[in-house]
Amino acid sequence: MNGLLVMQSDFGLSDGAVSAMCGVVLSVDDKLRIYHLTHDIPPFDTFEASYRLMQAVPFWPEGTVFVTVVDPGVGSSRKNIVAKTKRGQYIVTPDNGSLSHISRAVGIESVRVISEKIGRRQNSEQSYTFLGRDLFSYTAALLASGKVSYEEIGEEMDLRELVLFAGLHPEITETRIQGVIETLDVRFGSLWTNISRKDFHTLNVHDGEDLDVSVYNGRTRVYHSFVPFQRTFADVEIGEPLLYINSLDYVGLALNQGNFSKAYNIGTRKPWYIVLERIPKSKQPE
Amino acid sequence: MNGLLVMQSDFGLSDGAVSAMCGVVLSVDDKLRIYHLTHDIPPFDTFEASYRLMQAVPFWPEGTVFVTVVDPGVGSSRKNIVAKTKRGQYIVTPDNGSLSHISRAVGIESVRVISEKIGRRQNSEQSYTFLGRDLFSYTAALLASGKVSYEEIGEEMDLRELVLFAGLHPEITETRIQGVIETLDVRFGSLWTNISRKDFHTLNVHDGEDLDVSVYNGRTRVYHSFVPFQRTFADVEIGEPLLYINSLDYVGLALNQGNFSKAYNIGTRKPWYIVLERIPKSKQPE
Amino acid sequence: MNGLLVMQSDFGLSDGAVSAMCGVVLSVDDKLRIYHLTHDIPPFDTFEASYRLMQAVPFWPEGTVFVTVVDPGVGSSRKNIVAKTKRGQYIVTPDNGSLSHISRAVGIESVRVISEKIGRRQNSEQSYTFLGRDLFSYTAALLASGKVSYEEIGEEMDLRELVLFAGLHPEITETRIQGVIETLDVRFGSLWTNISRKDFHTLNVHDGEDLDVSVYNGRTRVYHSFVPFQRTFADVEIGEPLLYINSLDYVGLALNQGNFSKAYNIGTRKPWYIVLERIPKSKQPE
Repeated sequence: MNGLLVMQSDFGLSDGAVSAMCGVVLSVDDKLRIYHLTHDIPPFDTFEASYRLMQAVPFWPEGTVFVTVVDPGVGSSRKNIVAKTKRGQYIVTPDNGSLSHISRAVGIESVRVISEKIGRRQNSEQSYTFLGRDLFSYTAALLASGKVSYEEIGEEMDLRELVLFAGLHPEITETRIQGVIETLDVRFGSLWTNISRKDFHTLNVHDGEDLDVSVYNGRTRVYHSFVPFQRTFADVEIGEPLLYINSLDYVGLALNQGNFSKAYNIGTRKPWYIVLERIPKSKQPE
Repeated sequence: MNGLLVMQSDFGLSDGAVSAMCGVVLSVDDKLRIYHLTHDIPPFDTFEASYRLMQAVPFWPEGTVFVTVVDPGVGSSRKNIVAKTKRGQYIVTPDNGSLSHISRAVGIESVRVISEKIGRRQNSEQSYTFLGRDLFSYTAALLASGKVSYEEIGEEMDLRELVLFAGLHPEITETRIQGVIETLDVRFGSLWTNISRKDFHTLNVHDGEDLDVSVYNGRTRVYHSFVPFQRTFADVEIGEPLLYINSLDYVGLALNQGNFSKAYNIGTRKPWYIVLERIPKSKQPE
Repeated sequence: MNGLLVMQSDFGLSDGAVSAMCGVVLSVDDKLRIYHLTHDIPPFDTFEASYRLMQAVPFWPEGTVFVTVVDPGVGSSRKNIVAKTKRGQYIVTPDNGSLSHISRAVGIESVRVISEKIGRRQNSEQSYTFLGRDLFSYTAALLASGKVSYEEIGEEMDLRELVLFAGLHPEITETRIQGVIETLDVRFGSLWTNISRKDFHTLNVHDGEDLDVSVYNGRTRVYHSFVPFQRTFADVEIGEPLLYINSLDYVGLALNQGNFSKAYNIGTRKPWYIVLERIPKSKQPE
């Protein structure tokens, strides 16, 4: 443990909820150093919570403890868990899919179910609606401070029981990849797909080569164009589209200094999808 | 003092004002650990500032120093003060009502008026519009770092002179409680009232019992329904209403995974209020 | 170096980008203390990035390292640099104008071009679109932790080559100053000009004196009134206008507890400008 604790939630920062969680953590050990991933996850959006963990967790040192509270089922029977990633970070979370992308990108080594005897804050037994404060943050603080070891948190859980989202991988043939638009690069509007660098390179595309790119909303094709694969935005003119490998090592589709999502009114996840096809030599632009 | 300093304001985080305050604090002692409550208090809304303090302060350890800057009267004659709560936290604030809810929920032990000689940042004598940086944050840093003791901050003030909001308590009879909707659980739209758990239980309601609930906008009743009292959201179906004790130990009114405030277009504070009535056995639903 | 590192960007806080940068910094040295200026710079707005640095940097202690990532030219040939201010703070930034206001208000002592050999994060060679994480934050962490000295970052650059915005100074005559509205006090709507306290006092205005104030949108005058110069908001009635010296030591134009910008629908920067004129004694209001 390195004393670093990182929070994520769908609580926003406009009220005192996140600060109450910080207070609980620092009441366990005031030397813990709290940072934040984001608290702007749309309410109840566990897929987004999962995605944002993938964007940040891999860049934090071993022994960092994350706590993520996006919990539409607060008070229901879903489990409260702590996962250990294959790189030695810990994630405290309700078991509702939030570990899907980390599982794909980094891998989960093991998961334990939080024992209420250990992980529940004293005198909070009559509080039923804010487990983020009374259980998840408190458990994360116990773990990050070393006051309770990972093994003491609770019983190990069978990894096959972990709740994971389906459909996280693209469909690949020799000349065509069909993928999902998992999220947007929010402020800039670029589309971020689930097609990894490795998946993409099965097409044997070279830098600067045009691909046939389509974006569908269900059965309706809302975008269709030849788009070059480039290293970075500045490799095309301002306002021009490009395919590129984004900062998470997945294929992105963007307009240089423009907003692709707004320009073509494109959304994310089902029923949206994207198709990349190699162009036969006879049809390639010169 | 534990070296923890927590900031609140109505400055937002889109410009450099909060960061300038952090710089001033860390120029006093760069080992202080700064956290934030919220900076999204609506401009000049001292009631909201007071409420948010109640939501966070009680969960922080003894010796934590809070500084809250929501100050429509900057430059006027209202006092600059430091309060000590009954749990040993300190709050640096203009004397404009911001201590009302903490006073109700935790209690204020004593208050001192900040001496300008001690609490004003050097070379800021010609700055009249940013006391948050030049006086409040600076004073908080002196206190949190131990460079100035609470007693040295300035003269003690008579607690009866403290500015407090009126109307913070509900009206209670044997079968009926009339309260105020003090705020919303912002992102989720639940109504948070000023009816405490203790107040509520004078009605002798048991878990699952229906109450007759009305919400008024002045004289107009905009919501009226039988609503069950439950422990937590998942105790009712998705979209169904419930009364519950919220995470601050006050009565809340919510829709499970819905937004009560938006669904019925309900606001907060005057002229909005809520009435809870026990239902005579003869009229109770079966 | 004091171990303090302050981040600014146009990434927002709704995704995981800023947290990934924090993780990179703390992977270099987990004892560094990260704070934030703002991440709400409008996308690609390098002028705003420059302004916000002026608002915060001067209040931080010597040895603090800032990293600012507003970079429309990511992947182009503009330089990656570290500047040392005349007060001993460091700023890691793309060379695209972001140092203009700090240069005006504090002064730049020297600038070095970041060597990719030193400042690029290991194993990030195939990442071309997130230099904020892979180069700027990483370099800032090396510097703040003392693992690399300022001199080792790269070659010194001729200060005359530094990219700076033009038009940062007002036009001054004996009785008239024409300036630019550089930004708004965002939440409160006051206009903040580029007319410094020193510039303003060349007019020999005394406290309470009325000035003839005009605001232009190109050739169109959209506001014209006599406005008193006052120390602070409370010196005029609620809703009344005032000229004052703001917290950065420049002239501001505000309505006491009102929003000047919204009230008169006034914007910032070209083609907006403001003219202050002394009123001849014969025309002064009594």
